[in-house]
Amino acid sequence: MVAGKKLSRFAMENINKITDIVIITTGGTIEKVYDELDGTLENRGTHIKNKIQSKLRLPYTNVAVYPLLNKDSLYMDDEDRRLIVMTVKDQLKKNCPIVVLHGTDTMSVSATKCFEEIHDLKVPVVFTGAMIPLGFEDSDAVQNVTEALLASKLLAPGVYISFHNQIFKLPNVRKNKDKRTFEGF
Amino acid sequence: MVAGKKLSRFAMENINKITDIVIITTGGTIEKVYDELDGTLENRGTHIKNKIQSKLRLPYTNVAVYPLLNKDSLYMDDEDRRLIVMTVKDQLKKNCPIVVLHGTDTMSVSATKCFEEIHDLKVPVVFTGAMIPLGFEDSDAVQNVTEALLASKLLAPGVYISFHNQIFKLPNVRKNKDKRTFEGF
Amino acid sequence: MVAGKKLSRFAMENINKITDIVIITTGGTIEKVYDELDGTLENRGTHIKNKIQSKLRLPYTNVAVYPLLNKDSLYMDDEDRRLIVMTVKDQLKKNCPIVVLHGTDTMSVSATKCFEEIHDLKVPVVFTGAMIPLGFEDSDAVQNVTEALLASKLLAPGVYISFHNQIFKLPNVRKNKDKRTFEGF
Amino acid sequence: MVAGKKLSRFAMENINKITDIVIITTGGTIEKVYDELDGTLENRGTHIKNKIQSKLRLPYTNVAVYPLLNKDSLYMDDEDRRLIVMTVKDQLKKNCPIVVLHGTDTMSVSATKCFEEIHDLKVPVVFTGAMIPLGFEDSDAVQNVTEALLASKLLAPGVYISFHNQIFKLPNVRKNKDKRTFEGF
Repeated sequence: MVAGKKLSRFAMENINKITDIVIITTGGTIEKVYDELDGTLENRGTHIKNKIQSKLRLPYTNVAVYPLLNKDSLYMDDEDRRLIVMTVKDQLKKNCPIVVLHGTDTMSVSATKCFEEIHDLKVPVVFTGAMIPLGFEDSDAVQNVTEALLASKLLAPGVYISFHNQIFKLPNVRKNKDKRTFEGF
Repeated sequence: MVAGKKLSRFAMENINKITDIVIITTGGTIEKVYDELDGTLENRGTHIKNKIQSKLRLPYTNVAVYPLLNKDSLYMDDEDRRLIVMTVKDQLKKNCPIVVLHGTDTMSVSATKCFEEIHDLKVPVVFTGAMIPLGFEDSDAVQNVTEALLASKLLAPGVYISFHNQIFKLPNVRKNKDKRTFEGF
Repeated sequence: MVAGKKLSRFAMENINKITDIVIITTGGTIEKVYDELDGTLENRGTHIKNKIQSKLRLPYTNVAVYPLLNKDSLYMDDEDRRLIVMTVKDQLKKNCPIVVLHGTDTMSVSATKCFEEIHDLKVPVVFTGAMIPLGFEDSDAVQNVTEALLASKLLAPGVYISFHNQIFKLPNVRKNKDKRTFEGF
Repeated sequence: MVAGKKLSRFAMENINKITDIVIITTGGTIEKVYDELDGTLENRGTHIKNKIQSKLRLPYTNVAVYPLLNKDSLYMDDEDRRLIVMTVKDQLKKNCPIVVLHGTDTMSVSATKCFEEIHDLKVPVVFTGAMIPLGFEDSDAVQNVTEALLASKLLAPGVYISFHNQIFKLPNVRKNKDKRTFEGF
């Protein structure tokens, strides 16, 4: 790997500049919501913007949420992944870092697809999600989103999975169900 | 700035490697604790390790806490800062990233001191703290610690303040009281 | 209703006496737990004792948990309700107030059964549950348990549903799904 | 004590009736707020109404907050207590239960004053407060307010301190600092 390609972005920018970040939401555990009428825990649309605003302080970050899908990633098919790749490509025109919220079960499949089909990246594309939905007291969602936002500012252009304070560069990343986290291989 | 010096560390490492990080605690708002017997909110010793373990998932991070001071940073003097510099220097022998928890009011003074007096860094030294103590529902402490830990893995060697999802490289960083955050100048 | 039968119990007791309370757990939304391995939210056993100890201060209350069932109350049958009635009867021998944690969908059915089949009560039997499980940030479970414990100390002998800071004496209580709470009728 | 005077109120009312409750706020630990600009934790006005609405479900309770004082109860003097007694008397004209939020250190003094100077009560007057302010993750404030609201509906007319799921009828109640709660004597 060539050193120059791993430059952290922030070094070249105005230190007080506000960073625009696009968050593409696709569903997944991280955004599952409990419905007290029927007792189900399902993807029903994104609420990440409100959560970010109520839980995090981001005076230098301007988040734009692009709601794409509301799917448990176990049920994503090729068409869904084509849509994710197309949307990432389209959002890349804004020339700002992209965070993709995605179910953990097939996150590495979608991230690999982006890695294979999107070239000449000028910004990082960072996938993340959660083992436990936002809204649970012991959720890892806020941690993972916090880290993905920061990672998307610091990393060199490329496709990554950010999870549990660790950054994995695609390809060769997978979920390790037993360890309840991701790993490289 | 030469590109090669800004290399993000993780690119050169085993992707699943567990990172050792030293957290040096000095007190500050972030670690102020309420005493229900006398109603005071003061620095009484560090509890960051327990908080990290109960709030964050860090399967690839091994945190060692070095409790140095328990001071509101408004009351730190030259001697305290000498002690911080000496301790950072000493902990640097472990060759792992360092996070310093510090009061916000004079964080930039201590960080500048480290920047001026510690040379040939081979790892990042990342200062952070909080506007509202750990233990409050609306504290920014967990966010800031989460970010500082990740930043300490991703940044090139140097002295930084990490705060509210923004990284400021020393020198020329200060607290902006009105904006309730840090800024470069 | 005769006034004398509605006497609040505490008036006749040593004011600093520690009250023993039996909590019978039957499952229900209140105790549904998220499994991050398979993404299900289900009744898997009781954890109310730990929750009570970590969330509430009860220096004058000695809670004994009797784990009976782990059922969504929609799936309770006559046999389950016979078991609940039998268990309440059995626990009444301890002569201390009883709180029953129960799913909301058929809570009034089980409570009515207890009302009809248990006579000569000398303590209150207080049913409660939750619209959103313990473990969610916006759960009403801790509120309902807090209230049920206090109600079980203050109420005259009888069978009650305690929910959302309101006490309903059996019979003629039902869940109002639209209002997401209980009501008398 | 005559049994008839201890009748719990709710027995005589429409079971679905919404109860009006007046909360008189006087300051105290329960309402101390952290100021991130100067790092102080002080009484600065009441925010109990917002907290109640965001933390509790009270479909049958209509809370009206009467903001009276913003004092640490250690610094209350005779004049303050006269004001509390006068305000309670005045609010009693509304003929609904009253909850008084008060610092713990001299709560029993103010409550005793009310007990001595207010006669022919037709509703309960329930004092409560907290060992740890609202806004801390481990605060007992929400628990105490939840209990005081319910107690104010269930108790016979009289002056009480409600704390940590225990009800103490005035007089002869005091804070036990070592036990971090109240007790009768």
